[in-house]
Amino acid sequence: VITDQNVNKLYHHDLQRYPLIEFAAGEEHKTLETVEFIYHRLLELGADRSSFLVGVGGGVVCDITGYAAATYMRGLDFGYVATTLLAQVDASVGGKTAVNFHGFKNMVGVFNQPRFVLCDIDLLKTLPREDIINGLAEVTKHALIGDSDLFHDLEAQPRKILDLDRKLLEDTIERSLRVKIGIVEKDEREVRERRWLNFGHTFGHALESLAGLPHGRAVSWGMKLAVQVSVRKGRLQEDVAARILRLLEVMGLLPDVHCDASQLKKAVRTDKKKTGDALKFVLLQSIGRPVVEDIPLVELESLIDDLC
Amino acid sequence: VITDQNVNKLYHHDLQRYPLIEFAAGEEHKTLETVEFIYHRLLELGADRSSFLVGVGGGVVCDITGYAAATYMRGLDFGYVATTLLAQVDASVGGKTAVNFHGFKNMVGVFNQPRFVLCDIDLLKTLPREDIINGLAEVTKHALIGDSDLFHDLEAQPRKILDLDRKLLEDTIERSLRVKIGIVEKDEREVRERRWLNFGHTFGHALESLAGLPHGRAVSWGMKLAVQVSVRKGRLQEDVAARILRLLEVMGLLPDVHCDASQLKKAVRTDKKKTGDALKFVLLQSIGRPVVEDIPLVELESLIDDLC
Repeated sequence: VITDQNVNKLYHHDLQRYPLIEFAAGEEHKTLETVEFIYHRLLELGADRSSFLVGVGGGVVCDITGYAAATYMRGLDFGYVATTLLAQVDASVGGKTAVNFHGFKNMVGVFNQPRFVLCDIDLLKTLPREDIINGLAEVTKHALIGDSDLFHDLEAQPRKILDLDRKLLEDTIERSLRVKIGIVEKDEREVRERRWLNFGHTFGHALESLAGLPHGRAVSWGMKLAVQVSVRKGRLQEDVAARILRLLEVMGLLPDVHCDASQLKKAVRTDKKKTGDALKFVLLQSIGRPVVEDIPLVELESLIDDLC
Repeated sequence: VITDQNVNKLYHHDLQRYPLIEFAAGEEHKTLETVEFIYHRLLELGADRSSFLVGVGGGVVCDITGYAAATYMRGLDFGYVATTLLAQVDASVGGKTAVNFHGFKNMVGVFNQPRFVLCDIDLLKTLPREDIINGLAEVTKHALIGDSDLFHDLEAQPRKILDLDRKLLEDTIERSLRVKIGIVEKDEREVRERRWLNFGHTFGHALESLAGLPHGRAVSWGMKLAVQVSVRKGRLQEDVAARILRLLEVMGLLPDVHCDASQLKKAVRTDKKKTGDALKFVLLQSIGRPVVEDIPLVELESLIDDLC
């Protein structure tokens, strides 16, 4: 079992019966150094190709466990027990594993599918309210790129899910996952449809690195910018854009952020979605209908100047 | 282009026209530190998912280039220009990429197939004779596990290939590659036939780490032990074993090595072929006919005591 200190504190009684690797919690530990620490521990524990790794935790634990499993002895089998809403609706599913590299988000990684993903909503009860809000960003993203009914339902009762109503949570997580799974099954390696899942992530990742925001809030802020770019590019109607921003606002997903244009431009230049002098940018045409457009870096930079 | 200092010195005129990443030559640099250096340089050079990496060099350059390509931004396309006999007949083909980890050979890696492998025998002319001898170990291995005719031809003129006769080299490299490619195509992920390619490598890798021998000589010494184990286990006739050892001897492939039983036993315990308390060990039944046997670690340790 690979987990972080926070999760281990909460579930030590259940986890201690397995050979256990624990590392410090937090995005700042999603690094190659932590992965090397895990290799060391795996060697100490005598792990071999017949070993099975289970990552128990949020997105960071899932990403690191999958990457370590993919690269230790050229690959062990592994699975996830996702303990945060963000991990349940997004990070645990799809087979993207990665670590950050010197401030660049998910710069080093591989595609590597887990054998199972376990999403137990009882695990969410121990989470601070902030973490549930954080997870709602990816739920809203999935609604925006693939399920307009889900968007309408969120709009109807934007804060009810925060009460952790069991039925509503189960339903919301399942619908959110269906969007993601449907897309990943069509295009695992992100050469076509899977790019949609990056909606809000170009600016979101930049902000996550620059301002140290939690992933969900950073992505939400990135979705706000992407919605505004969609309007500027004549793809999305202004009243629809306003509805989207209102929902993000009501959910508590639009933190007050200082938008540093020059830093943001620098970060965009090293985005993984860049090919040559353009960037594959995900725009919205309407709720549930994304579209990918090659936007030249120079144009994107002038948009950043306008919007920041 | 990713290459090492030795190769870059020889071919700088041809390589300088490409964005170039160079690192210090030698097995001791096949590490995660070198891979991190390559990530840094790729970021500096603005490499993105549309970039194509070409590793130009021997086995170390191929292994590192393939691993960096597999993990930078979750995977770039790549190819190899193999400049040593060892790389041409073995390391460049089959999609195994890896680096060493704190003295453990190829402990961290992934399966990742190159888009092309270029084996130009003119590149071998600049190699010291020692390097050709080193490459002959893997050629002999391929003969032993899959091409008895090749073994007989090597036996008939064991040292002629060292004169770098063009026709003979071409023929030998091709036949050697056919054995490897045939096996890899049947079983890329090493769950069945591909294990045969590890013939001589259990002890070979241990010796490479412990005594700092070049890969070919270490494997050759490992094949000697594996042949002796095959006889002890009643799989191989003594006269056939003697023929094999004679050929390795005549080729200059059996260096005088101090066999440290306790070190060897320790190394075997962390071999990647270990599953639980046994190790998948490749034995010979006759020339061209390998077989994989689960040998309990305790038995293997007592064999090491006998043979060392």
